Amino acid sequence: MNVILLDPKDAITPDEFVIRDVRRLRHLRDVHRAQPQDRFSVGLLGGQLGKATLQSLDTDQARLRIDTLDTPPPPALPVHLVLALPRPRMLARSLEHITALGVKDITLLHTRRVEKSYWQSPELDSDKIHQHLLLGLEQAKDSILPKVTLRKGFRPFVEDELPGLLHNRRGLLAHPGMPDACPRGIEEGTLLLIGPEGGFIEWEVEKLLAAGCAGIHLGPRILRVETAVTALLARLF
Amino acid sequence: MNVILLDPKDAITPDEFVIRDVRRLRHLRDVHRAQPQDRFSVGLLGGQLGKATLQSLDTDQARLRIDTLDTPPPPALPVHLVLALPRPRMLARSLEHITALGVKDITLLHTRRVEKSYWQSPELDSDKIHQHLLLGLEQAKDSILPKVTLRKGFRPFVEDELPGLLHNRRGLLAHPGMPDACPRGIEEGTLLLIGPEGGFIEWEVEKLLAAGCAGIHLGPRILRVETAVTALLARLF
Repeated sequence: MNVILLDPKDAITPDEFVIRDVRRLRHLRDVHRAQPQDRFSVGLLGGQLGKATLQSLDTDQARLRIDTLDTPPPPALPVHLVLALPRPRMLARSLEHITALGVKDITLLHTRRVEKSYWQSPELDSDKIHQHLLLGLEQAKDSILPKVTLRKGFRPFVEDELPGLLHNRRGLLAHPGMPDACPRGIEEGTLLLIGPEGGFIEWEVEKLLAAGCAGIHLGPRILRVETAVTALLARLF
Repeated sequence: MNVILLDPKDAITPDEFVIRDVRRLRHLRDVHRAQPQDRFSVGLLGGQLGKATLQSLDTDQARLRIDTLDTPPPPALPVHLVLALPRPRMLARSLEHITALGVKDITLLHTRRVEKSYWQSPELDSDKIHQHLLLGLEQAKDSILPKVTLRKGFRPFVEDELPGLLHNRRGLLAHPGMPDACPRGIEEGTLLLIGPEGGFIEWEVEKLLAAGCAGIHLGPRILRVETAVTALLARLF
């Protein structure tokens, strides 16, 4: 927890906030061994970063008073990431990596090789997703939550939504065996599509290429989804 | 398991191999639903990749007969990675990522902010490490095991070993706040040093810079070690 993120709805006065969740109370107590008057890096969810002073800490809640809130969060990556829904444990970790790296638009997509049962996982509850996004933000000292969208139909996504998403954005389909190597250090708005374990099926690749995406690869090595996501984002931006 | 890795010591004739470990037998049975005469991608540990035909599969062992073994493994990254020993669960995953990405020289180093208890973890048993390396190779369809070295003293490593390792290699110290951004797409031999959660302490940074390493950063975001390792390797090479 490199920053304590304060939710506007937990404000008790304009510059005083209360924290009630067990995870962060425990972290303050056990990792920081926090005492009243200690100062912490904080961020207002959706707003700026700064410093706050701990007013009180007991078993049920901590109170923090904002001292400054004048630093903008780190820049976002100019990417909308469309990720075939990974299996639940990998989804959790991938959401944290992706958020820490600065992605702000995430679509989780059904594709042929996504097991249907994954869509029933409790990891997809919005509270669970929110927790993983918060962990990613806390890690990277960021305050802007990504937006996560679930799309359970591949064909409607590609036919109805993708053309709009590709308006003013470069579409990149990351898939082993595509002809071009992943570009490096681009700055333009990008839509990046990453398949599931086992990859997109050929029909899906054809649909995505036909929609205007360019196929790219990361070399001959087959990577796990969570490794590939981080590697692609780090190489692209 | 994108490739079945055959250990030379499991050869029963020059082109017949036996597999006895439960993990892979179960994978053949449950994931591949393997039947005699099915063909699989194989690799000889330390050697080439190719195809083999399943001769028999029962509860105790599988027998495979090599058909071809004529494809070289994917190229290695030209890097020696020196990683402050991560906490055990992260070590396990990091070894898999690093191996899948093609690193062949890994030194796990003690630094001030590495908890001493991590050195007692069963994850450091050579059998456990070997298992994680195998998983990384199987993922990336590679057959060349990385060499993992443990170094429990920071000062002796820096004073006695580092000068030799930096002979004919570019030394890069990845650390938040260093002046230069991580370079992209380099091809020269590199020694890459990555600190623990919480980073190298200032004295360690000074020693490493004095030894001839150049300090690099990945931007303002603080990343978890496993995310940072993948991001650095993907951006550098």
